[in-house]
Amino acid sequence: MKSYRKELTFNIPSRRGFVNITPQVEEAIRASGIQEGLLLVNSMHITSSVFINDDESGLHRDYDQWLERLAPHEPVDQYRHNDTGEDNADAHMKRQVMGREVVVAITNGQLDFGTWEQIFYGEFDGRRKKRVLVKIIGE
Amino acid sequence: MKSYRKELTFNIPSRRGFVNITPQVEEAIRASGIQEGLLLVNSMHITSSVFINDDESGLHRDYDQWLERLAPHEPVDQYRHNDTGEDNADAHMKRQVMGREVVVAITNGQLDFGTWEQIFYGEFDGRRKKRVLVKIIGE
Amino acid sequence: MKSYRKELTFNIPSRRGFVNITPQVEEAIRASGIQEGLLLVNSMHITSSVFINDDESGLHRDYDQWLERLAPHEPVDQYRHNDTGEDNADAHMKRQVMGREVVVAITNGQLDFGTWEQIFYGEFDGRRKKRVLVKIIGE
Repeated sequence: MKSYRKELTFNIPSRRGFVNITPQVEEAIRASGIQEGLLLVNSMHITSSVFINDDESGLHRDYDQWLERLAPHEPVDQYRHNDTGEDNADAHMKRQVMGREVVVAITNGQLDFGTWEQIFYGEFDGRRKKRVLVKIIGE
Repeated sequence: MKSYRKELTFNIPSRRGFVNITPQVEEAIRASGIQEGLLLVNSMHITSSVFINDDESGLHRDYDQWLERLAPHEPVDQYRHNDTGEDNADAHMKRQVMGREVVVAITNGQLDFGTWEQIFYGEFDGRRKKRVLVKIIGE
Repeated sequence: MKSYRKELTFNIPSRRGFVNITPQVEEAIRASGIQEGLLLVNSMHITSSVFINDDESGLHRDYDQWLERLAPHEPVDQYRHNDTGEDNADAHMKRQVMGREVVVAITNGQLDFGTWEQIFYGEFDGRRKKRVLVKIIGE
């Protein structure tokens, strides 16, 4: 069994945003030399997500509005977490809806994906450096 | 380390529906010959889910109504994704709530499950052929 | 390839609650002797979650209120699942938002975690014994 580990870093200039990280993940698979196995990609933070969906800008605007409806940022004093001096309680909720991690099959040295699957980093409390972990095990 | 891959296909005759796919997944485990390892089951599409819950028809009706409340299909013009000519933006949201994939332990050649755990395919934009990936690694 | 399996048990004295289970998971990693691999932690029940977020009591109160808003317990007769004699349909929904399982990288014999990541058991239908599965594969 082989294993491979890599950290990716992101600094989203706004509070919220989505970035397609599929090319960086594919580069990690090539660097690992692993042909058959499982790939884990997870946010190392608790106010952001890694998820798989469509690379379509209208959908990303829809996600942003929908998550704001499910867990609004304002008023910040509606959340007890924000009594600690933070203003990001809503980001902890949005991240649970979108998920922390994805697990993807690697087959023949490639992401074993359907036609439209792409991997995204979803930021809900940006404007600072954040890390994403890529871990691969296999042969 | 051994690995095994299989695709399952579904064509749900309505827009939304839930199918218990546990028997097909168990058949894949038997075919793999793997006794100890991890099993990944994921939708290869971005408008459907694979999830684990109860095989109870009342609950499935509750899920359907609840997801419609969280992310209504109508009016379709409330979503910018639908400006592309699609009408399935709501399906991309419902799928995030229910999840893309499940990872399950395999112990002694079996799904290592609690009493009521069953694996479901959840369709939110059906009436066409969709694929589910089963990938197993272990020994 | 090595594999390791352990069950943890919990009996939350109220209907809902969150417990930090990171120490028990770290003990399982030590017992496994696995240095590089993947760790699966999942609820073996369909009305509770395993998830990764912050160990902050204000946030846990926010989660509880937010989940009650998304899927209220009362009135119990709003859910068809409860026609079966259960009163826990809401718990099946809350668990989907928070997730069934987490998959975590093991690197150098440790949880490969960001600064604030902690693993929680989330109970939505407590006052009875529940089980959590820890499965590790690697070398």
